[in-house]
Formats: sequence, C-alpha cells, structure tokens
Amino acid sequence: GIEVSSFEANIEFSEFKTDDQGLVPVVVQNYRTQEVLMVAYMNEEAYYKTIKTGKMTYYSRSRQELWVKGETSGHTQYLKSLDIDCDKDTLLAKVDQVGAACHTGSPTCFYTRISGETEATSNPLYVFKHLYDVIVD
Amino acid sequence: GIEVSSFEANIEFSEFKTDDQGLVPVVVQNYRTQEVLMVAYMNEEAYYKTIKTGKMTYYSRSRQELWVKGETSGHTQYLKSLDIDCDKDTLLAKVDQVGAACHTGSPTCFYTRISGETEATSNPLYVFKHLYDVIVD
Repeated sequence: GIEVSSFEANIEFSEFKTDDQGLVPVVVQNYRTQEVLMVAYMNEEAYYKTIKTGKMTYYSRSRQELWVKGETSGHTQYLKSLDIDCDKDTLLAKVDQVGAACHTGSPTCFYTRISGETEATSNPLYVFKHLYDVIVD
Repeated sequence: GIEVSSFEANIEFSEFKTDDQGLVPVVVQNYRTQEVLMVAYMNEEAYYKTIKTGKMTYYSRSRQELWVKGETSGHTQYLKSLDIDCDKDTLLAKVDQVGAACHTGSPTCFYTRISGETEATSNPLYVFKHLYDVIVD
C-alpha cells in the first residue's frame, strides 16, 4: 500500500499571487516518471487540505466546489513534494498517482499531439531502441 | 548548434478553451530531463508564432505584449513537441532549453520547496547514490 503522509507548509497561501477568483494553477507531475499528468487549480482551502491530508485536493472551476482527486474514481494522487515558482503564482506537485490521472482513462490528460517531432527524434533514449533493433537484425 | 524547426498545427487556436483574456497556460518541460521549467501563457498570435518559428513565444500578462523567450537573454526555448490536454484548456510544450529557464538564473522557476519529502525518499534513483556512498565507505 501507499503510505499516506501529512505535510507542513513553510509558505502560507496568502503569500501566493492568485487570479481574480483566488486560485493558483497546479502542475501535477508523476514523481517516478516525471510525466506531466494534468493541470488543476487550488484555492486556499484546497491548498491546506492537500498539505494536511497528503491527498491532492483541488477547486473545481466547472463545479465550483472542492474536489478531492480520486474520491469517486479511486484515482487518488498522493503528494510527494510541492514547489512554488519564482513569482509565486504557480504550484508544482509531484505525486504518486493511483490508476489514470485523466477522467478519460488515459494516464495523462496531455495525450493529444498538436505538433512536433516523433519519438525517434524527441526521445533521447530512442537511439538505444534503434540500436537494439539493429543488433537483433 | 540547435536545429531550428518549423512545425504545423493540426489543431487551430480557436478550438481551445481560453480564459477571459483569450489566453491558455503552457506548461514548459525540458524534453531531455523532463524537468518542469515554468508555466507561461499564449494568445493566438503567440501560439502560431511558436509553431511557425519553432521558438517558444508567449504573451506576457504583466507587460501585455508578445514575448519571444530568450530574445533579450539568449535563453531561447526550441520547441520539440506540443500537446493539448483533454479539455483543451492547457498546453504542454517540451523544449530544448538554452541556458536557464528562470529569469533568476535558476534552471527552473520551481526552485522553492513548500512541502514534501527530501530527495532521499522522493527520488527513486537516490537508493543507488546511497549504495554508492556505502561502497565508497
């Protein structure tokens, strides 16, 4: 099982630069793979609840309510570390993700490629995969 | 030198769900290390300019103008891939970062730890570092 931890905040929410709805965006990253899973938003209550419980808790802008991630789906995100950026308006959470982060069942919400290189040129490890294929040949 | 590429967008900006200022947040990740470097914002012009030039271009909310990252600092970000999330309101860019992403000179804007575990428990590779120290001892 995953150990649930309680954390302490050394920065108060009031020090953050929030948007006009009192929210800050949170980039959520898988702490093992470093994959970016999603971006969600926190208000003051979500921030302190996350730190107290060790489970990622957001403010749902569409439902306009507190949202404990995984409360209904079981896809809980356990907090591993939390950082704030240089201008104090964005959080970065590294989490231990149970199941899929995305409500579609995808491991990450960022599964739609707009533009860019294929794995062959964007993944530095691809060369090893290619080398392996050559050796096998 | 870094090869500058031009890209094509298979999704138009008008399909995105922007905020009331016509902006979408962009999570910027180092394509080699997977480190999250910063979060910035794009308007329609910044989006198409980024794709056309292959250099990350944002809309500066504080200066209220287009901002070609690195234009004055030299710390250009070359686009490697661009993804949109499931509800089309957030972009994820993987980039080849020249120099430091943060204006403070830090490699990432997320250098302030609020809460969480130390490297010893949050970095899965730490055990190897520890093992090495034991062997050296």
